[in-house]
Amino acid sequence: MSRAQTLAALGEFGFLDRLLPTLKQRPDVLVGPGDDCAVVRCGNRRVLITTDALVESVHFERDWMTPHQLGRRSFLVNLSDIAAMGGRPTFCVISAGVPVSYPARDLTALHAGIQAAAQEAGAAVVGGNISRADRLFISITLLGEVGDVVTRRGARAGDELFVTGTLGDAALGVKQLQRGRSGGHAIQRYREPQPRVAVGVVLARRLASAMIDISDGLLQDLGHVTQASRVGAEIDVEALPYSAALRRLPAAEALQLALRGGDDYELLCAVPPRRVPALLRLRKQLGCQITRIGRCVSARKGIEMLGAGREVHVDSGGGWDHFVTRVRGS
Amino acid sequence: MSRAQTLAALGEFGFLDRLLPTLKQRPDVLVGPGDDCAVVRCGNRRVLITTDALVESVHFERDWMTPHQLGRRSFLVNLSDIAAMGGRPTFCVISAGVPVSYPARDLTALHAGIQAAAQEAGAAVVGGNISRADRLFISITLLGEVGDVVTRRGARAGDELFVTGTLGDAALGVKQLQRGRSGGHAIQRYREPQPRVAVGVVLARRLASAMIDISDGLLQDLGHVTQASRVGAEIDVEALPYSAALRRLPAAEALQLALRGGDDYELLCAVPPRRVPALLRLRKQLGCQITRIGRCVSARKGIEMLGAGREVHVDSGGGWDHFVTRVRGS
Repeated sequence: MSRAQTLAALGEFGFLDRLLPTLKQRPDVLVGPGDDCAVVRCGNRRVLITTDALVESVHFERDWMTPHQLGRRSFLVNLSDIAAMGGRPTFCVISAGVPVSYPARDLTALHAGIQAAAQEAGAAVVGGNISRADRLFISITLLGEVGDVVTRRGARAGDELFVTGTLGDAALGVKQLQRGRSGGHAIQRYREPQPRVAVGVVLARRLASAMIDISDGLLQDLGHVTQASRVGAEIDVEALPYSAALRRLPAAEALQLALRGGDDYELLCAVPPRRVPALLRLRKQLGCQITRIGRCVSARKGIEMLGAGREVHVDSGGGWDHFVTRVRGS
Repeated sequence: MSRAQTLAALGEFGFLDRLLPTLKQRPDVLVGPGDDCAVVRCGNRRVLITTDALVESVHFERDWMTPHQLGRRSFLVNLSDIAAMGGRPTFCVISAGVPVSYPARDLTALHAGIQAAAQEAGAAVVGGNISRADRLFISITLLGEVGDVVTRRGARAGDELFVTGTLGDAALGVKQLQRGRSGGHAIQRYREPQPRVAVGVVLARRLASAMIDISDGLLQDLGHVTQASRVGAEIDVEALPYSAALRRLPAAEALQLALRGGDDYELLCAVPPRRVPALLRLRKQLGCQITRIGRCVSARKGIEMLGAGREVHVDSGGGWDHFVTRVRGS
């Protein structure tokens, strides 16, 4: 490795890819690094483990939301990883870095936000640790329980691709916050992700061959699935589910947000054709929109966008990678 | 709460104390926040969960150790919390914040250090997450398994107090690093804590009524035990175990380091008098020094230092609290 290589040059995903093969495992590790959660055996149970951090000036600015909202959000981004494996949350611990000047009442509110989101999800905050830090960070580790696990690896050519909810709203919300707006649907979608836990359980139990949550943008996360599953994908651009807020934008801008915006925290899954009728029958019971957006194809084809009479081939590295891009949306 | 209250005024422990009673629990939470680890029931097992972060310029400076040593250390400080509950480590996840300019090879070495320490301890690194951050932080969440749990709460007046190893070395090491020294016993003790996992298992199974690891200084951590157990304590100052390095210092300086220095990662435990003979018989098998340093007394007495013909009453708030003190050792 060259001396000059920094994370800025390499990117987070490049770096993680390089580390993953070095990890040796215990036999009770069912799914190791590289998926939304690890899955480990614990006696007669399967336990999910995930960890994610929100860092000031990287993932948020303090004036983008209240401390309570920030607390909720730091729990919810982890909850989405549990949803992506078809699990339910159980316990979490908090590791926070807090500037000495941070008001105690804001920290109380932040903590109350984590607590509230955890309780609503049926999870318990069982511990934590606070350190001094120059900038605020909140790192949460969330455990979950799971029956049928679905990973990123199981997609096969021919499987159809579905997403829950709508895409690109949160990324639009970030743009609006950066322009000084303080409210509206898109900003609310950024502030308060709605992890698809109940839907994830159903999809994992009977339907999906592979699943991931969309946190780094559809293309990036689809790329994780196609890479892990060794397939390609065709995306039907006309089918991408937009909210009313996105439909009001110029088409190119909306498409960009839907494909490359981050923070959606919706689920993307692959469903074998024989199970699609069952999914469509269940649609109404799922409690959220679920949309067919394309299908898996041979790995040789990469990821292709189909629609509006044109085909555009894209590489899968176009999402949100902390070390390559600068500040989200800018 | 006053608007002006910040963490700097309140202190980490004051803040945590205030939060803990707000936490509602699931019935499968056996030990919630406020001990070295949480203990949760997971099917037919008891699982320990702990999380701890090392933050650049708060817990370490980059030139104090190699990235590999830093990686080892960030695992080991968590391992010590598992040891303090009488458990054995199983799985861990890493949440790191890394400056864009941080060399990729240093991050590889840091990760290899975590890996190596985890493997030596019999644990597996099952996942992780890297974010951009202005200053390096490494937050690790470590799970463990445990049979007999010992918490901070079980000490009774009359129980004798024991510590493993020697005290104050790591704090002396930090002073030496700050003065530009780069090696020696004390610095090594800071860089490479030796969590007492095997000893902790033995102490928890048959001997200790309460246990904690000494990470914030003997007085601070003893204070956590006496507060949780609602007892007081008498410490026999002459009995405190010193390394050769500490014995070479002026007596007052050595005492200060032993009482208030942090980062020892030794175990402090209370042992009921009837079990002390069994502990003394096991001493040789424990593989490390274990020293009687005092005993628990009525809560009314607080914490008293006995020795050298004088008695000094101290409050228990004299250890290392990130938000009240400035930089360790300064």
